[in-house]
Amino acid sequence: MLVILKTNCTTAQKKAIEDYIFSCNGQIVEAPGKTRNVLGIVGIDHTVDREVIASYPGVDQVVPITQPYKLAGRDLHKEDTQMTIPGKKGASMTVGKGSLGIIAGPCTVESRQQIIETAYAVKEAGATALRGGAFKPRTNPYSFRGLKSKGLEYLAEAREETGLPIVTEVLSVEDLPQVAEIADVVQIGTRNMQNYPLLTAAGRQSKPVLLKRGLAATLDEFLLAAEYIMVEGNRRVILCERGIRTFEGEVRFTLALAAVPLLREKTHLPVIVDPSHGTGKSSIVRPMCRAAIAAGADGLLVEVHPNPEIARIDGAQSITCSEFSTIMKEVSAIADCLGRTKIH
Amino acid sequence: MLVILKTNCTTAQKKAIEDYIFSCNGQIVEAPGKTRNVLGIVGIDHTVDREVIASYPGVDQVVPITQPYKLAGRDLHKEDTQMTIPGKKGASMTVGKGSLGIIAGPCTVESRQQIIETAYAVKEAGATALRGGAFKPRTNPYSFRGLKSKGLEYLAEAREETGLPIVTEVLSVEDLPQVAEIADVVQIGTRNMQNYPLLTAAGRQSKPVLLKRGLAATLDEFLLAAEYIMVEGNRRVILCERGIRTFEGEVRFTLALAAVPLLREKTHLPVIVDPSHGTGKSSIVRPMCRAAIAAGADGLLVEVHPNPEIARIDGAQSITCSEFSTIMKEVSAIADCLGRTKIH
Amino acid sequence: MLVILKTNCTTAQKKAIEDYIFSCNGQIVEAPGKTRNVLGIVGIDHTVDREVIASYPGVDQVVPITQPYKLAGRDLHKEDTQMTIPGKKGASMTVGKGSLGIIAGPCTVESRQQIIETAYAVKEAGATALRGGAFKPRTNPYSFRGLKSKGLEYLAEAREETGLPIVTEVLSVEDLPQVAEIADVVQIGTRNMQNYPLLTAAGRQSKPVLLKRGLAATLDEFLLAAEYIMVEGNRRVILCERGIRTFEGEVRFTLALAAVPLLREKTHLPVIVDPSHGTGKSSIVRPMCRAAIAAGADGLLVEVHPNPEIARIDGAQSITCSEFSTIMKEVSAIADCLGRTKIH
Amino acid sequence: MLVILKTNCTTAQKKAIEDYIFSCNGQIVEAPGKTRNVLGIVGIDHTVDREVIASYPGVDQVVPITQPYKLAGRDLHKEDTQMTIPGKKGASMTVGKGSLGIIAGPCTVESRQQIIETAYAVKEAGATALRGGAFKPRTNPYSFRGLKSKGLEYLAEAREETGLPIVTEVLSVEDLPQVAEIADVVQIGTRNMQNYPLLTAAGRQSKPVLLKRGLAATLDEFLLAAEYIMVEGNRRVILCERGIRTFEGEVRFTLALAAVPLLREKTHLPVIVDPSHGTGKSSIVRPMCRAAIAAGADGLLVEVHPNPEIARIDGAQSITCSEFSTIMKEVSAIADCLGRTKIH
Repeated sequence: MLVILKTNCTTAQKKAIEDYIFSCNGQIVEAPGKTRNVLGIVGIDHTVDREVIASYPGVDQVVPITQPYKLAGRDLHKEDTQMTIPGKKGASMTVGKGSLGIIAGPCTVESRQQIIETAYAVKEAGATALRGGAFKPRTNPYSFRGLKSKGLEYLAEAREETGLPIVTEVLSVEDLPQVAEIADVVQIGTRNMQNYPLLTAAGRQSKPVLLKRGLAATLDEFLLAAEYIMVEGNRRVILCERGIRTFEGEVRFTLALAAVPLLREKTHLPVIVDPSHGTGKSSIVRPMCRAAIAAGADGLLVEVHPNPEIARIDGAQSITCSEFSTIMKEVSAIADCLGRTKIH
Repeated sequence: MLVILKTNCTTAQKKAIEDYIFSCNGQIVEAPGKTRNVLGIVGIDHTVDREVIASYPGVDQVVPITQPYKLAGRDLHKEDTQMTIPGKKGASMTVGKGSLGIIAGPCTVESRQQIIETAYAVKEAGATALRGGAFKPRTNPYSFRGLKSKGLEYLAEAREETGLPIVTEVLSVEDLPQVAEIADVVQIGTRNMQNYPLLTAAGRQSKPVLLKRGLAATLDEFLLAAEYIMVEGNRRVILCERGIRTFEGEVRFTLALAAVPLLREKTHLPVIVDPSHGTGKSSIVRPMCRAAIAAGADGLLVEVHPNPEIARIDGAQSITCSEFSTIMKEVSAIADCLGRTKIH
Repeated sequence: MLVILKTNCTTAQKKAIEDYIFSCNGQIVEAPGKTRNVLGIVGIDHTVDREVIASYPGVDQVVPITQPYKLAGRDLHKEDTQMTIPGKKGASMTVGKGSLGIIAGPCTVESRQQIIETAYAVKEAGATALRGGAFKPRTNPYSFRGLKSKGLEYLAEAREETGLPIVTEVLSVEDLPQVAEIADVVQIGTRNMQNYPLLTAAGRQSKPVLLKRGLAATLDEFLLAAEYIMVEGNRRVILCERGIRTFEGEVRFTLALAAVPLLREKTHLPVIVDPSHGTGKSSIVRPMCRAAIAAGADGLLVEVHPNPEIARIDGAQSITCSEFSTIMKEVSAIADCLGRTKIH
Repeated sequence: MLVILKTNCTTAQKKAIEDYIFSCNGQIVEAPGKTRNVLGIVGIDHTVDREVIASYPGVDQVVPITQPYKLAGRDLHKEDTQMTIPGKKGASMTVGKGSLGIIAGPCTVESRQQIIETAYAVKEAGATALRGGAFKPRTNPYSFRGLKSKGLEYLAEAREETGLPIVTEVLSVEDLPQVAEIADVVQIGTRNMQNYPLLTAAGRQSKPVLLKRGLAATLDEFLLAAEYIMVEGNRRVILCERGIRTFEGEVRFTLALAAVPLLREKTHLPVIVDPSHGTGKSSIVRPMCRAAIAAGADGLLVEVHPNPEIARIDGAQSITCSEFSTIMKEVSAIADCLGRTKIH
């Protein structure tokens, strides 16, 4: 860590900073400049609070040199992480380190028939896991919030039928035991990326966690959210880029695909992409699925509905089973021609 | 609500949309255009899902005409809401409808002495409530997360001493009873603006809620979050603009002061501003406090620390008690010259 | 166009709006609502000013129904436009309608040797045109601004040697004749996307124009800038997505690849992508080139430097000739497997 | 400047960087770290290209320590700059160093009568300069582009009548002599903030320049644009914050008032605010004018139209003469109570 002092930093202010660093067992290498001084700090623990140092009055800037996310970062874990998540009947999803995990299904579980029908269709097309919301986060309190435990039940039935492992969202610490009992992967959504009690609770149970990026989260904040889960013991976190909020109004979000290779450099965790929420527009889901895989993503999360025209939520971004099938052919071809097991 | 149909909307697609609207007891006024049709929908309930209609395949755009937030909006509640929140010893904070609520104090409760000392200082300068974090949301899991129940205890002592009502943040449904027992106003922070279980729980208890805007939330999303609380029965919500995330890197956030008059047009709830988090930079807190009041805000949330140089968190944006005192003189003068009881 | 009136729109205000519309030979279809009225306007000319209507006091919102860009839009020109741009020695670049135009070369022409060496290398790897800046726009007035006419001369020599057509930027109306004399494609950069005199002048000369998206331009503003060129007579405009400015600080810009299929829906013009400027980071240029082609782009603009370590400008985002060669193999494979002539 | 080297920076790479720095007469102070090295560079000229150093392969980050804008910055010019711009009949505008310059008038000069009528009205209300567009930048090529030289003529007549100095925009180098002959202050608009030939030409003529911030420009880019003008000899530049583009869709732009005190810290030049374009919404112009002055702005640029209902352009953001008069009373009161000559 480099601490750049203000031009007018007093001796007393400098001393206060140094005392704090020494109290954390840090060492200081001083680099005096023409107009201001710089302190290089070495040897301190990752638990030291960068913000604390930044808050000292004589400090102009703190420039981090090493990553604050010890478990999620690549510094201490060079190799890509791969996870295999079993469903039923021998089916499973493997994601990371060259394997693509393809998670597909409706935004919301609407009925027993709808979810089972979709499960068969997406499996047929090549999906390796089934998604479907039972507990739905809704911006508007008057909107439909999902079938809840009935929805979980239908998801379990769909798994019994097709074998596909289940990915479904959890909204609260309270619901977590119930969701984690059924789900094969527990999803934490965009709005909850910095819901620390929920991250902590997810870190204390054993199901893998699919963590979606907050809509205005930096990549470091995203990885620190993963670290919240990992530090509790659960090391199986799948990261999901799902679009960020920008000035661009043509689409609901701007799918930031550069996040895929950028995260690849920083973390060993699998990184997948959600072009459905990431654009909010069904007509461009297909090219963005192709682009995500070409950018090196470890998989996709795609909203597929047997009949988007009557989908209760997010129909505008859902695609049909037949379109999903076309997408699977294209992304497989791209993955193949890039040498599947070494996409980036 | 206006539903603009696609040029290629089929008769069957149009019929499906109409059936759905009729099923919600809506009426349709058709406005045929040269290239595409428009359906004007009247008489339907606010519980109808705009997103559901947007999801029908023949639909190009849905243009909302009335506000979705029945309780937070002005449509059914024209007059500004004013709240009086009592502390101890006859002290209280009144906010809204011309009264400025000034909430000041350290980011984090660090010790009994620190919080009591600050409470006396900010009261002396003119603050009407004391803030201080006992449960702290931290981006980094390795950072200090507050004194928790000990912190609440010290806040209560500071209230006993000075009489100032207490504003403090709650991070989870689980902690809410404990926090609400001590707090006079329960704060829900930026990261939790769309934590629906927490909003719902806050709506089911009786203490007023200070709700901070999410860092990438639209004003409608912000008001819908308030609606989540209000629909449960708790109508006392104070809104707080605290900066949005933009490309501008000089400051941690861009304080969007236009939100103050914009919210004023949409809602009857009090709107206050947090220039400390909203800029992250102590040297510009003072002019931004003045600007917030001049823009018509009903109050301020300001981080004040007796000794920002050694503040454990957010020292970079904290100001001293003496600077706070200067700010209070300036904002009082501005409020006075704008006719205090009719600032907007 | 739909004009949504305010609830409190007076009869006089409404009459003023109607008079204006009639004065433009428009017809009005009225759709009265429960709380406010809507005017549907048909039959008016594209020259009518939407902003003028929006400015009438009784107007709440104006909802456009048809595209304002008559020449750049697809409404009157359904088929994709393809352009063939000849260089020398029989070489040429064809871009659009299934053909990929690959434009590569250094950010800046630094010397005769550097540009010729790079031209041979990129041609060998598969590029179909050579880029290189002679007139450089620089944020800082003290920075190196290019070799100017000497740079143009070297570019012409590189074309003589390799046959590759030349793409180079123009910064002012004054320089345009000189640049257009040498260039095969005249580039208008990001900062000049709304430099209307320059767009107009570019529309009055005969060389095709490569127009880069402004860093905060909406897609409609981008297409209206193209319209500025086209309305003057020059119909050969190539659009280039090059990243937008967002809160994300890891990269210089956020490459908004969804713009590719979105523009495809709106315009018949070729759309290419610049992953070099669009990320500013050489280590992720390769995956983003693949993603751009997979998203359906008609080509790429890539900064290649024989020795990025000593590039005078933008070395941080330049890649080596050998890395470019690898990229070309990958993007060709992706284009092939998507059926080259029908990428979207 | 601090140069942080990559962990894997080779000796050869490091040598290349050092050679470059020495070639610019720089000195190096080395600060070796546990995992990577840092070079502190002192004594080099401001003409050295930071981007060049950033582009060397072994470099991870370049951290600037001093400002790149020598003339616009405060480093070499501590005191606030004040400018007095004479009109006719003894009238003049003084802006900066405690004096507020209030520039008001219609977006566009529409007729002789309209501009003279408005000039009298805004002067009566307290404006110190008259604005009005003769050459208008328009997003849509089919929109009305102003009365051009006829508009300039009417502006001159309005000055003859009222004495108010004239502020009007120039769009191109070609038009500059004509505009500068009439104008007392030449305005360079948002879209041209990085039109370098225009900035350079504006720096070579003698009229003061009102420079508007680009809609996605950082403050450093803004000050470097001012530097482009100043380096040519014209030191009279007035900076204008006019809103930035963010995700917030309620308003056309987000008025970033924190820019006022931030610019104050960095530059000695006067900083004014345009709440009309900065919000695009007439109903919130008034509170934002108050907020701008309270934030410490040296003045305002306000769109006032005698009859906004029939304004040809930007009526939606124009206010009436009577509303402007109310604003002037409020901002004067705020300026007074903050001690006019020392607002910040």
